[in-house]
Amino acid sequence: MNEHPLYQIMHPKSVAIVGASNDYAKMGTIQLLNLLGGKFEGKIYPIHPQEKTVMGLKAYRNARDLPEPADLAIVTIPNSAVLQVLTDLGERGVKRAVIISGGFKETGESGTLLQEEILKIARRYGIRFVGPNCIGVIHPAFHFNPTMYPYLHKPGAVGVASQSGTYVTQIIPYLSKFQIGYSQAFSVGNGADMGLTEVIEYLGQDPATKAIAVYIEGIKNPREFIRVVSQVTRRKPVVALYVGGTEAGARAAASHTASISGPDHLYNGLFQQAGVIRAYSVEDLFEWSFALASAPPLKGKNIAILTHSGGPASSLSDACNRWGLNVPVFSESMQEKIRRHVPATGSTRNPVDLTFFTDLKGLLQTIPEIILSDPSIDGLLIHGIQGGTFFRSVIEANKNVMNVPSSDQINRFKEFFFSVLENFIKFPQKFDKPVITSAFGDRRDEAVAFIQDQGIPCYGAPERAARAMAALFRYAEIRDKKSSE
Amino acid sequence: MNEHPLYQIMHPKSVAIVGASNDYAKMGTIQLLNLLGGKFEGKIYPIHPQEKTVMGLKAYRNARDLPEPADLAIVTIPNSAVLQVLTDLGERGVKRAVIISGGFKETGESGTLLQEEILKIARRYGIRFVGPNCIGVIHPAFHFNPTMYPYLHKPGAVGVASQSGTYVTQIIPYLSKFQIGYSQAFSVGNGADMGLTEVIEYLGQDPATKAIAVYIEGIKNPREFIRVVSQVTRRKPVVALYVGGTEAGARAAASHTASISGPDHLYNGLFQQAGVIRAYSVEDLFEWSFALASAPPLKGKNIAILTHSGGPASSLSDACNRWGLNVPVFSESMQEKIRRHVPATGSTRNPVDLTFFTDLKGLLQTIPEIILSDPSIDGLLIHGIQGGTFFRSVIEANKNVMNVPSSDQINRFKEFFFSVLENFIKFPQKFDKPVITSAFGDRRDEAVAFIQDQGIPCYGAPERAARAMAALFRYAEIRDKKSSE
Repeated sequence: MNEHPLYQIMHPKSVAIVGASNDYAKMGTIQLLNLLGGKFEGKIYPIHPQEKTVMGLKAYRNARDLPEPADLAIVTIPNSAVLQVLTDLGERGVKRAVIISGGFKETGESGTLLQEEILKIARRYGIRFVGPNCIGVIHPAFHFNPTMYPYLHKPGAVGVASQSGTYVTQIIPYLSKFQIGYSQAFSVGNGADMGLTEVIEYLGQDPATKAIAVYIEGIKNPREFIRVVSQVTRRKPVVALYVGGTEAGARAAASHTASISGPDHLYNGLFQQAGVIRAYSVEDLFEWSFALASAPPLKGKNIAILTHSGGPASSLSDACNRWGLNVPVFSESMQEKIRRHVPATGSTRNPVDLTFFTDLKGLLQTIPEIILSDPSIDGLLIHGIQGGTFFRSVIEANKNVMNVPSSDQINRFKEFFFSVLENFIKFPQKFDKPVITSAFGDRRDEAVAFIQDQGIPCYGAPERAARAMAALFRYAEIRDKKSSE
Repeated sequence: MNEHPLYQIMHPKSVAIVGASNDYAKMGTIQLLNLLGGKFEGKIYPIHPQEKTVMGLKAYRNARDLPEPADLAIVTIPNSAVLQVLTDLGERGVKRAVIISGGFKETGESGTLLQEEILKIARRYGIRFVGPNCIGVIHPAFHFNPTMYPYLHKPGAVGVASQSGTYVTQIIPYLSKFQIGYSQAFSVGNGADMGLTEVIEYLGQDPATKAIAVYIEGIKNPREFIRVVSQVTRRKPVVALYVGGTEAGARAAASHTASISGPDHLYNGLFQQAGVIRAYSVEDLFEWSFALASAPPLKGKNIAILTHSGGPASSLSDACNRWGLNVPVFSESMQEKIRRHVPATGSTRNPVDLTFFTDLKGLLQTIPEIILSDPSIDGLLIHGIQGGTFFRSVIEANKNVMNVPSSDQINRFKEFFFSVLENFIKFPQKFDKPVITSAFGDRRDEAVAFIQDQGIPCYGAPERAARAMAALFRYAEIRDKKSSE
């Protein structure tokens, strides 16, 4: 695997960067900053025609002047200059590149010719590359982020192959809300040399990648895609968002990454053959991938639902059924056990609704333990993860008219609270069953942040949790089918 | 309209509150706190069997001791005590109530009998009420929030009729992320006296309500629903989330609010007859309602798309087509005008993709003006609203390796930035066309917060903006059909 060109692109010991300067308004400069600020441990060689130093680093006038053939070149310069720079890099023995520059096949005929030229040069010098017209790659665990967007949250287990740069970089604030972390993420752009299929193949081999999220505008070689991806989906789940199946989507894709799209039904067939789960929004793409990457496999489709509010309980139930999951009525004996912990106004049949103001231990410890111990239940959905947010908002709104609790009271509550959570976060592994949660609050709530940090999905609305659980079931079906093939 | 019992419930000059005490752990106490902290201007009479004062207010031992017949009673006590309290209230001449207590029809046979009893008592004394088994009502502009959840963001134009309390209260943190404000919100619970239909009728008359969001577990009298709601949807849009159309959803609904649900196709027919737009998730319910309440009507289905990133441009295009909207190719003359403001690597056909790092003025001023001036375009979707978040994250990530901009530089940027935004937020009214936006960041970004505060929807992902626009088109169709009837 160390021989894979994409492995080498993701693990460079030295990087030549073409397009960085001392001007903070340039994308290349911000990319260099992200390498420096992100504590990339390799050597960095800025290449700049005039500057002697770039961001404090010695700069080289030309790639041919580099003190060594860098393991990787990052190229962020106007399209007209790429050909010469690539030649210079090739002459110096550089064999791997990420070409971020746009203005190639996606812009029409002359761009297409230019793209063919750079491919020829690359072939001549044995250069393998990602791009052009991409935003770069991110490998958080390797402290390697030569894109223009800082990656500040934890590395994770979601591998990304994307024909959109935005869905690798500008989406980071969204991903960090749910602590959806990358193992490695590739923006492939026009994919002139290596595209989606090569990236999926590579991520399929990467041990840190547990699920693969793919954003597709068009697949160049469907037969090759099916051949490669079918192998990957035997071992790990692949989720795809395909946007080229409509007239407007196809048009947008063509001008974005020069992709030739195909009709929806054709791609549905292709995904089915390859064992790919199809999502229809970028939120589902990443939320499903993260659930698949972090939760134990779902073994059947019998789901338990637990909340302290009836609306989300009904929404979760309805969404489960709509997305192909069962919400079986619990056995009388299980209901009996649960009933001891549920107020008379609540319900115990499945969904379990504790109603408002019940004990936290019931919601996150006692009842989940009863439910997950039952062999007839395959997975658990919980809505309403919440720490002190509600009480803080009550205090904030009413501090002039109430006694604010003492810090001693608050600390006692917190201690109790986190002891419950510490136990809760072990349940998926302990019972080997997926637990997916949702909450209307966000990471400013300490309970939401805590369980997200421990790798339990906590999404923004009940239906999103249910859909992610359904994606787990879809993968269970795919895996079963593949293993019987 | 002042005669409508729901109007009176929402505009009390005096409130008797039964269930508040000096114990902060009681729901009734927090409700009272929210009245006090929310600056409710009417009189408040706590009723408590032992306490002399409750939260500093003189308490009354029994409703019969009240100094005046309060305009409204809020009842949050165990179900067994409700009958007597309602009788006492009736004896004192109180005519309106919100009964929050649970343990009635939703719990089975004995609860059903109890509910029939309270209905009898209410009829005897001429008491009209909301509930039981609800979470109360919220009227932000009247500073009237006797629920247990603080409402801290601005009042708005979305009226809510909900069989779930959570979708009136615990959802508030979610709504505040997008500044989706209530005109008036009703949790109807079991709706023993007044239910969804009555609330929709009332909100239909309320001038501050521009769209109505309805959460439905089951409709008691479909014929009456169609009769009433058909009239409302001639004048204002109604969006409904119905969760009872699946086996598990129906079961959850029954134990939640004692609702008798019906099959999906039956409700689809019912919604079609009544002119109701159906949503399938609580996010869509509120996001569509807010767009309908705040944007000018959509007059046709030709949508323009503008972004500075190709992935969201393609996602928006695909989602528009999937949800029944057109994304027409712009005329050559319009493309010519736009091209002057778009880099060579961008695209101008529709979607317009400015690619990364273009001028803010292009995204939010020059190009929107060109697009919205064109009579062939009915509405505009923009992804990528962002103020200083990106630059701040670059600075934060790299402050050790870069020169941080001076406060003077930052202020100059901000001044320019807000001058563009000030202009932008006038476009929907100026051109009388809806503009719906999305961003992966949130209100911590000043641009997102600014445009949200000015009533322009800014949602969390491109597909959500597109679906909201499609809801506007659905309502345009409904209104056209109704006006030709």
